[in-house]
Amino acid sequence: MEGVELAQRRLVVAANRGPVSFHDDPSGEPVVTRGPGGLVTVLTEVLRHHPGTWVAAALSDAERRLAAEKRAVEVALDGEEYRVRYVAPSADAYHKYYNVVSNPMLWFIQHYLWDLGRHPDIRAEEMDAWHNGYLVVNEQFARAVIDEVRRGPDGRRRRGPAGDGGDALVLLHDYQLYCVAPAVRAACPGAFLHQFIHIPWPQSDYWRVLPEHIREAVFHGLLGNDVVAFHTRHYVRNFLRCCADLLDLEVDEARGVVRYEDREVWVRAYPVSIDPASLRDAAGSRRARTAERKLRGRRREFLLLRVDRLDLSKNIIRGFVALDRFLELHPEFKERFTFLALLQPSREDVEEYVTYRERVERLVADVNTRHGTTDWMPIELRIQDDFPTTLAAYAQYDVLLVNAIADGMNLVAKEGPILNRHDGVLILSEYAGAFEELGAFALGVNPFNIEGQAEAIHRALVMPPEERASRAAMLRRVVEENSVEKWVQAQFADIAAKLAGGA
Amino acid sequence: MEGVELAQRRLVVAANRGPVSFHDDPSGEPVVTRGPGGLVTVLTEVLRHHPGTWVAAALSDAERRLAAEKRAVEVALDGEEYRVRYVAPSADAYHKYYNVVSNPMLWFIQHYLWDLGRHPDIRAEEMDAWHNGYLVVNEQFARAVIDEVRRGPDGRRRRGPAGDGGDALVLLHDYQLYCVAPAVRAACPGAFLHQFIHIPWPQSDYWRVLPEHIREAVFHGLLGNDVVAFHTRHYVRNFLRCCADLLDLEVDEARGVVRYEDREVWVRAYPVSIDPASLRDAAGSRRARTAERKLRGRRREFLLLRVDRLDLSKNIIRGFVALDRFLELHPEFKERFTFLALLQPSREDVEEYVTYRERVERLVADVNTRHGTTDWMPIELRIQDDFPTTLAAYAQYDVLLVNAIADGMNLVAKEGPILNRHDGVLILSEYAGAFEELGAFALGVNPFNIEGQAEAIHRALVMPPEERASRAAMLRRVVEENSVEKWVQAQFADIAAKLAGGA
Repeated sequence: MEGVELAQRRLVVAANRGPVSFHDDPSGEPVVTRGPGGLVTVLTEVLRHHPGTWVAAALSDAERRLAAEKRAVEVALDGEEYRVRYVAPSADAYHKYYNVVSNPMLWFIQHYLWDLGRHPDIRAEEMDAWHNGYLVVNEQFARAVIDEVRRGPDGRRRRGPAGDGGDALVLLHDYQLYCVAPAVRAACPGAFLHQFIHIPWPQSDYWRVLPEHIREAVFHGLLGNDVVAFHTRHYVRNFLRCCADLLDLEVDEARGVVRYEDREVWVRAYPVSIDPASLRDAAGSRRARTAERKLRGRRREFLLLRVDRLDLSKNIIRGFVALDRFLELHPEFKERFTFLALLQPSREDVEEYVTYRERVERLVADVNTRHGTTDWMPIELRIQDDFPTTLAAYAQYDVLLVNAIADGMNLVAKEGPILNRHDGVLILSEYAGAFEELGAFALGVNPFNIEGQAEAIHRALVMPPEERASRAAMLRRVVEENSVEKWVQAQFADIAAKLAGGA
Repeated sequence: MEGVELAQRRLVVAANRGPVSFHDDPSGEPVVTRGPGGLVTVLTEVLRHHPGTWVAAALSDAERRLAAEKRAVEVALDGEEYRVRYVAPSADAYHKYYNVVSNPMLWFIQHYLWDLGRHPDIRAEEMDAWHNGYLVVNEQFARAVIDEVRRGPDGRRRRGPAGDGGDALVLLHDYQLYCVAPAVRAACPGAFLHQFIHIPWPQSDYWRVLPEHIREAVFHGLLGNDVVAFHTRHYVRNFLRCCADLLDLEVDEARGVVRYEDREVWVRAYPVSIDPASLRDAAGSRRARTAERKLRGRRREFLLLRVDRLDLSKNIIRGFVALDRFLELHPEFKERFTFLALLQPSREDVEEYVTYRERVERLVADVNTRHGTTDWMPIELRIQDDFPTTLAAYAQYDVLLVNAIADGMNLVAKEGPILNRHDGVLILSEYAGAFEELGAFALGVNPFNIEGQAEAIHRALVMPPEERASRAAMLRRVVEENSVEKWVQAQFADIAAKLAGGA
């Protein structure tokens, strides 16, 4: 690829959610708050190194008004400055794009969650959601990205070579935007296109759940980029083999390359991480310290912890079943621990999620009834979104359980060890992305193996102090040495290398 | 491999079920009947070319008495002669081997049928079933195979080089016997070991459902063979990649070879088939002709047909949902067809199967109520095992629907076209093994795509007569040219080549 080198390139980031949320307060005045989610944190890190515009979907009336201006708005918040450009799909198109195609369709495929004997059915409704939802919203994103690429640094529209995107670096994020790249490439052939997928990539047989024209649009969409990025080498390999199996493309697994049209698409792994310093800052806040005092005051000998979004992929049920089994096998631990489960409510308008929450609540009641005493309830379930309490619990746990069925990365497994002060043991699913980096110092578990998880809980609780200390130190070290800053640098280094014509 | 060439080798076949069933009649006299299932048919074909002993599990009291004799029994039935050697696991071990591990565990994994958010749970019960069921029964099979290998052609036990199996060819069949080969190889290093897997082979991520030591035992077990055989190139590729992904073995996809210990294991595809001549013979029987007369007498303009075991993998529900959708889109076909569903009852002691049957029956009632008239019921559901009616229906169909979620081969797709006399159109799932051979002449459907299946039904019904005729002729030709005889020959040719040291 010829063109402008990386340092001179202007950034256009696109992700479904923006870095900030605009809402009208009760008096009708617009207020700005920070957007939720880990993606905002990591993309803020990217923009700190390399300022640019962030294209996102308008989710509130205030944001829809901003979208109508068809240009970016500048906003400063918590010491960061953002330029945000909103696109405003119709409520109908957004619903189809978000609630039918992205979740659950793509989410369930990419986490192997479909019960294929029963679901999904691809009917007229799903076909319509693809064509009149997902593709329409992706097109709107593409138009906004193209418009931003064509504007100069001064925000004015340009013509000529610069308008071809030769000075732009476009970063597309995640599974809502698989079909954005080709339109941007066609309109701005000089732009460098990079897409990061934050969730797992399954193997080719499982993609066959989608009708051929839909799955091919997903792959052709992604291959519109110059680089396609994942969290793990495992997902990279799965993606490359999918290109061979489903599109009959030539791939080079060793080099991480797909030959596509007359180009090479690089497919690479960059394990995302956290920023230890800012996590420590947050843990030092008054609210977090208050929460920790409370937690410490009621602490039993051991604190077991899980922190998860209430999602089927997180495998919450099997974690409690394993605790039940652990108590059957080791009644000597009765009254000596609390299993604190901090679960963020999620997608409460989707039926599967409502049912799942009910199953979790019922199971917790059963386990507590079965093993509890007049003085002790084994599981404390908190379905809430309370970051200070999470930070406090990170500091205090003896055992942190992450047993996901599938998980793009899982940042809980990285946050916990950084803040923990009890040489806590990490029990980590072999199928969380984080396992590639942390598996050697965690107790690995198969998410389906109840017996194995019950054993891992026991092993963690009886582990000699020296082993706990050395494992905890190694976990901390791996996370410290592979911070989110390194994640950004590795991606930019590859972008620079590809711009320079390297391989 | 050095040793005796193929023509001189004695055959020892092992499969869960034997070629015949011994039962006591009410007066206590033993009676012999032919065993059910397609495997008996194809292995009878093998033994016709190459006589030998068949090792099978004893399923009745009469068979258990024969097992106690610890030697093969000779039996002639329907013009075939068999030597059968029974092994008699305890009822407990057999239950664990068959009803816990083989079905549903392995069956559900290999057909991608688990609802991973909920099932399976690997608990103490499953671990126990593996160790005290599957492995124990596999060991019993191995001991019986070894004993048969060590006997001479006269049925007497031998010592010395011949007792090492140098004159034996051992053919192991299917997913119940994954762990037989290594013990046979260790005891009889001269024996040639060949295992055929009649169901799909899924990709490596899905095998991770099993605890590591179990899945590794499956792979090490299979790699104890000289040749591992599947129905399709797709399953071969999946198996080879699994060996690389899960066991870190060196594989050569182009040559179909796994390097294992100091040997090469060949992994090959041999699409199983039917014997057109004997199928035609059966269709000419009095009972089949009577059934056909009945069917013809009540025939509407079009006959749609499905013939399946009542199994989740067959995707029966989505077929009826697609018919429902077809009738919504094309009410002009009302009263003009019958959709005859011939479903064999299956595994009626397994809860999933009972629930599935209930769902099928309820849905058929719904669709019939919604679209039926005083003179017409669209779906005729027959849950029964009635081969003459199946043969009659094969002759009469205009459209044959095979929409399996996953299916090792699917012989219905081969039997139908051979007997059909209406230039019937085959609608065939892309995920049935038969699709590799027949897909070009069938209407391919994605099993999850209801809309696509409804469209395929319509397309089949309005297809011009010339196109129907040419497709039907090509289907017939492909099946005729790739009969079960060719399936046997291809395997024996490769065995001979490997014995001769070829690659």
